[in-house]
Amino acid sequence: MKVLGIDPGSRITGYGIIQKLGNRLLHVDNGAIFTDTSGDFPQRLHKIYTGLTEVIERYQPDAMAIEQIFFSNNVQSALKLGQARGAAIVAGVNAGLPVAEYTALQVKQAVVGHGKAAKEQVQQMVKILLNLPEIAQADASDALAVAICHANSVALRTAGKIR
Amino acid sequence: MKVLGIDPGSRITGYGIIQKLGNRLLHVDNGAIFTDTSGDFPQRLHKIYTGLTEVIERYQPDAMAIEQIFFSNNVQSALKLGQARGAAIVAGVNAGLPVAEYTALQVKQAVVGHGKAAKEQVQQMVKILLNLPEIAQADASDALAVAICHANSVALRTAGKIR
Repeated sequence: MKVLGIDPGSRITGYGIIQKLGNRLLHVDNGAIFTDTSGDFPQRLHKIYTGLTEVIERYQPDAMAIEQIFFSNNVQSALKLGQARGAAIVAGVNAGLPVAEYTALQVKQAVVGHGKAAKEQVQQMVKILLNLPEIAQADASDALAVAICHANSVALRTAGKIR
Repeated sequence: MKVLGIDPGSRITGYGIIQKLGNRLLHVDNGAIFTDTSGDFPQRLHKIYTGLTEVIERYQPDAMAIEQIFFSNNVQSALKLGQARGAAIVAGVNAGLPVAEYTALQVKQAVVGHGKAAKEQVQQMVKILLNLPEIAQADASDALAVAICHANSVALRTAGKIR
């Protein structure tokens, strides 16, 4: 099973593709889509959409995973983040992918083993679990983390250990 | 020139199509896309995207207009609204439409003549300007209002009266 994890943002949208083969997690690719902040906002959303659509066409993942967001600094940033997230999710569902959402707690538990892990611990564990040469760019690392969370929770569901 | 106005929301997305012929504004159609609130959120975003894409294919507008949002009740609703808005805007830019954003003040000024108009006054003026038999559904009416704003501001720009 190949999973595309995404960490959307109005300036930087991280993505990470991993493959689960049996019990092994393999890193396929990761990267980030940078939107030109001087451009108009609809065009920035378009860039997120087309960038992720290209990633999906190239790697043909079986599912998309994304962190569920409940908080933001303020209403302004929530509106911007929401729009970026909407563009990203539409890229997934338009490509026919099931889109799974996970809370930050679920992602941390899946990657580090407990829900109180610091951001740096998550990045370090992503590097170790996927055998990366170095810690990935922050947004790409977060995207890989939610992809790992999805791959493991699907495995657990399949094994009947969680619903 | 044919303009598609939209008023996105995570539960109801209003749309309205008008045509400007010389100085005349003609109503083409209006309606609303209702998303099933029991469904998962990515599928709701997909419904907004596909619903608007169908409207664009049917009426072939020259531009999309949308109200710019700065405020929301809270971060939660801003995130939801943002995602709906992102899905709607991507439907426009993916269809090759220029997407114009207007503030609520600009929309009220364009439709009623001053920026302090109440919601009911805007709805009443939309009905009168477009010769509707009755006031349109609230979200569709708001969508028609921003379409009127765009049609008139493009006319003013073309006439060199505003930049």
